[in-house]
Amino acid sequence: MGETIRVTVWNEYRHEVNKPHVRAIYPQGMHHTIAEALTVDFAVRTATLDEPEHGLSEAVLADTDVLVWWGHTAHKEVRDDIVDRVAARVLAGMGLIVLHSGHYSKVFKKLMGTSCALLYRDEGEKERLWVTAPGHPIAAGIGPYFELEQEEMYGEFFDVPTPDEVVLTSWFEGGNVFRSGCCYNRGQGKIFYFRPGHELYPTYHDPNVRRVIANAIRWAAPVQRETQRFGKSVPALEPIKPKGTK
Amino acid sequence: MGETIRVTVWNEYRHEVNKPHVRAIYPQGMHHTIAEALTVDFAVRTATLDEPEHGLSEAVLADTDVLVWWGHTAHKEVRDDIVDRVAARVLAGMGLIVLHSGHYSKVFKKLMGTSCALLYRDEGEKERLWVTAPGHPIAAGIGPYFELEQEEMYGEFFDVPTPDEVVLTSWFEGGNVFRSGCCYNRGQGKIFYFRPGHELYPTYHDPNVRRVIANAIRWAAPVQRETQRFGKSVPALEPIKPKGTK
Amino acid sequence: MGETIRVTVWNEYRHEVNKPHVRAIYPQGMHHTIAEALTVDFAVRTATLDEPEHGLSEAVLADTDVLVWWGHTAHKEVRDDIVDRVAARVLAGMGLIVLHSGHYSKVFKKLMGTSCALLYRDEGEKERLWVTAPGHPIAAGIGPYFELEQEEMYGEFFDVPTPDEVVLTSWFEGGNVFRSGCCYNRGQGKIFYFRPGHELYPTYHDPNVRRVIANAIRWAAPVQRETQRFGKSVPALEPIKPKGTK
Amino acid sequence: MGETIRVTVWNEYRHEVNKPHVRAIYPQGMHHTIAEALTVDFAVRTATLDEPEHGLSEAVLADTDVLVWWGHTAHKEVRDDIVDRVAARVLAGMGLIVLHSGHYSKVFKKLMGTSCALLYRDEGEKERLWVTAPGHPIAAGIGPYFELEQEEMYGEFFDVPTPDEVVLTSWFEGGNVFRSGCCYNRGQGKIFYFRPGHELYPTYHDPNVRRVIANAIRWAAPVQRETQRFGKSVPALEPIKPKGTK
Repeated sequence: MGETIRVTVWNEYRHEVNKPHVRAIYPQGMHHTIAEALTVDFAVRTATLDEPEHGLSEAVLADTDVLVWWGHTAHKEVRDDIVDRVAARVLAGMGLIVLHSGHYSKVFKKLMGTSCALLYRDEGEKERLWVTAPGHPIAAGIGPYFELEQEEMYGEFFDVPTPDEVVLTSWFEGGNVFRSGCCYNRGQGKIFYFRPGHELYPTYHDPNVRRVIANAIRWAAPVQRETQRFGKSVPALEPIKPKGTK
Repeated sequence: MGETIRVTVWNEYRHEVNKPHVRAIYPQGMHHTIAEALTVDFAVRTATLDEPEHGLSEAVLADTDVLVWWGHTAHKEVRDDIVDRVAARVLAGMGLIVLHSGHYSKVFKKLMGTSCALLYRDEGEKERLWVTAPGHPIAAGIGPYFELEQEEMYGEFFDVPTPDEVVLTSWFEGGNVFRSGCCYNRGQGKIFYFRPGHELYPTYHDPNVRRVIANAIRWAAPVQRETQRFGKSVPALEPIKPKGTK
Repeated sequence: MGETIRVTVWNEYRHEVNKPHVRAIYPQGMHHTIAEALTVDFAVRTATLDEPEHGLSEAVLADTDVLVWWGHTAHKEVRDDIVDRVAARVLAGMGLIVLHSGHYSKVFKKLMGTSCALLYRDEGEKERLWVTAPGHPIAAGIGPYFELEQEEMYGEFFDVPTPDEVVLTSWFEGGNVFRSGCCYNRGQGKIFYFRPGHELYPTYHDPNVRRVIANAIRWAAPVQRETQRFGKSVPALEPIKPKGTK
Repeated sequence: MGETIRVTVWNEYRHEVNKPHVRAIYPQGMHHTIAEALTVDFAVRTATLDEPEHGLSEAVLADTDVLVWWGHTAHKEVRDDIVDRVAARVLAGMGLIVLHSGHYSKVFKKLMGTSCALLYRDEGEKERLWVTAPGHPIAAGIGPYFELEQEEMYGEFFDVPTPDEVVLTSWFEGGNVFRSGCCYNRGQGKIFYFRPGHELYPTYHDPNVRRVIANAIRWAAPVQRETQRFGKSVPALEPIKPKGTK
C-alpha cells in the first residue's frame, strides 16, 4: 500500500514479428501496448522470449511484484528452469496475470496441475463478459458486462481447478460460455487468468480490458508480510505427555 | 452405483521391510492392512514400488476406479512417466486418495501445482480430528471428532490450493492445527488428501481412519459419464454474423 | 446407501389451475410430472400450497430425505412458520432442490441470506446448459451440454452466495449467461438450485432436465450420521492451565 | 483507493456498563478501544444499541464504508427493521466485520442463512490463531500465528456456510479448533467474521487483533463501482429467433 507496484509484462513476441496483420495492431508488440496502459499507475518493464533468460533473470523477478504473461506459439521454447523460477516466485508471493493463450503456457499448467485444455474456435465472433462477482476489486469500474466485437472463442469445459473466485463469465455469439476471469490463491501468491486477447484483434486497446488488467495487478500485488519457509520440522509449542514407546 | 468399485492400494513398502518396529505394526505392509479393511465393500488389489512399473501398468490403472497412495522415503524413485500416467488417469476420472506423507509424492505435487510443504514433528503426540463438513459423505458414521493417541504432527501452513471442501481439521497436543481431510475436483476426477498414517503408529488399524478411507473411496469413485476430450477446436453452434476482416 | 431415498415434490400449483396453456403442458400439475419421472428410483410423494400446512407437516418432513420446491406467484402465501420448519430440516440434513422461480421463495432466500435477485426475460429463447463440473455426480449421464429450445431467460448477476460448486452454466440466445446448477452445503444439509422450468414450456418433460433432478436428489440425500446439536457449552477435552484471575 | 475509508464501530455496550471487571478493561466501552486503534488510518465513528435507531440511521449507514459489530447479551433488542437496513447496505456494498459473539447477532444470522451455532466454553484458556491463507491481505503483517493468553473457546462445528476464504484457524488449549477468520462475499459487499473478543479479557488491546481488524476493514471496503439493481426484466441483447407459440 502506498508504494508503487512493480510490473513486468512478458510477451512471447513472435506473431507481431512474423505476421503483418498482427504487427498492424501491435506495432511494437503486445507487451508494449499492455505496458503503455499501465505506466500511469505502476512501475512497468517488459520482457520477451528471445532475450537472455527470456528477460526473466533472478534479479528481474526479485524486482517484480506482478508478472503479466502472454504466450501462444512458442510455449515449448520456454526453458524449464525459468518456468520453475517463475512458479517458485509466485508461491513466494509474486502475483501472476495469465492472458488468453497463456492458459497453455508451461508456467500456468504447472501451477494449476491440470491440462488447462478448453474448446476453441477462431471466427472473430462477439464476446460479452458478464461480471459474476460484483464486489470483487477486479470488477472495479466495470459495468454489469462489457463486449468485444471480435474475439477467438474459448469454451467450457475449461480444465482448471475450480477457481477461488470467478469475476467474469463470457457469452459467445457462437453458443459457448467460459469462466473468463479466474482468481487463484497459491502459496503466498495470487494468480488471475484473464481470457481475452487473441492476437488478431485489437483487444489490448480496449479500455475495459485494460481496466481489468490494472485492477488484477492491484489485487495480485504481494501482501506486505515476511516470506515464510513453509516446510520444516518444528518444536512443540505446548507440552506433550509422554506415552508408551513409539 | 450398484457396481463394485475397483480399488488399488499402492504402497512404497520400504519402512515395513527395513524397520522391525514398523513391521511389527504392519507385518505384510500397510497396503495389506488398508486393503484388508476394504475388501468387504470393494474389489481391492494392491501394488508396490518395487513391482514392475510400480504395479501400475496401463492395464491396472484402466481397471482401477480409485487409487490409494502411501509413500514417504522413496518419492524420488517413482518413475516420472508413471506419475504422468497416474495424473492423466485422475484428470480422466479415476479417484485418488493420498495418505499422510504422500503429500510430498510426485503425483500429488503435480496435481496440486504447489510445494505441498507443511510443518511437522514426530513426537507421538495426540491428534484430534474435528468434522468441519458434517453433511459431507466422507464424514458418514463419524462423530463430531475422533482421536488418535499417537501421531506425527503436520501443521499449517499447508501449502496446497484452497481445498474445494475441508471435511476434517486436526488439533494437535503440541499446539498446531491442520486441514486433515481435503477434497479436490480436478478434471473429471476427485482427490482426497487424508492426513493421518505415520508408519510408527497403528493408525491404519483404527476404525475411524478405516471408515474415512472407505467413505472417501465411495465419494471419489468416477461418475458414470462419457470421458470427454477437453481440448479441441469446435464449430459454432449458433450463426456468427460476418464482421470486418480479421 | 441401499435404502430408498424418500422424496417430496412440492408445488405451488396455481398456474396449472388458472392458465389453460400451462394446464395443457402439465394437466395434473408440474409436481405430478416431476414425481412421475422419479418414481422408478425413489419413494415419491407430492405436496401443494393449498393443502393443510401446505402439505408439509412435521410428520411429512420427518419422512422426507429430499424436498423438491417449485413456486412462483404465491411465495408470499407460504406461512413463515412452515418456512422456518423447512429451513431447520435442511440444516439438520434434509436435501433441498430448488427449481427455477423458486429462487425467490421464502425458504431459498432465508437459507441463502441474499436477495436472490437476477435478470430475467420471457421471450421463449433457446438455453444451452454447459457442464462446468464434469466429475460431479449431478452431471452423471449428461453430455458436454444440453439444450432447451424455449425457456425464460435468467441472467447474471444472480445475487446468491458463491456456490460451493457450479455444475451447469447457461448460454442464452438473447445474450446472457447464468450459473444454472448451484450446489450449497448448509449445516448438515445440501441444497441444489436448478434454473430451468418456466411454466410456459414443457421443460420438466425433458429427459436431461429429469436426469439432473434425479442426480441432484441422490447427491442431496442425507449422509447416514447422527444429527448433531451444533450449539452448546462443552467441557474441556484437555487440561487447561490456571491463569491470573479473569 | 486513496480516499479515507469511513468506519462505524457498533457496540451493544452493556457489559461495560453493568460489570465492573469488564469496565476495568474497557472503561469507555469496547467500541471506544476498537475505534481508538483505527483512527490513525480511517475516519471512525461509533454507535451503540441504546442510541436512537441504535445509532444506525439511514444517514449514518449511507456515510459508512465498513461497519464493525460487537453484540452479545442483547441481540434480541436490536430492531428488525434496522437489521434489514444493515443487511441491505451490505448487499449494496458496505463492508461488515462481525466480532466474536456477534456470530449470534440477527444481522449475521440473516446474512449467513444458517444457525451460526458453535461449541463454547469460558475458562480463560489459551488460543493460538494460525494463518491458513498467507497471501490474503487480512494476514498482512501477521506472523505464522499469534497467541491470546486467555480467551473464551469457540469450537467446531461452526454452523456457517463454507467461507469463501479462511484466513485464520484457531487452536485451543482445551482441545478444540475453529475457523476464526472467515471471508464472505455477499451481493456487492464483503463480510469478515473474526472470532476473538470475549468481554472478560483484554483482547481488543492486543496488537495482532487490532492489526487483523484494520486489515479486514481495508479488504472489506467497497469497490468503486456503480451500485447495481440486481433484479429486473431486461430486453434481449441479441436477436431471438421466433419459435412456435408459447
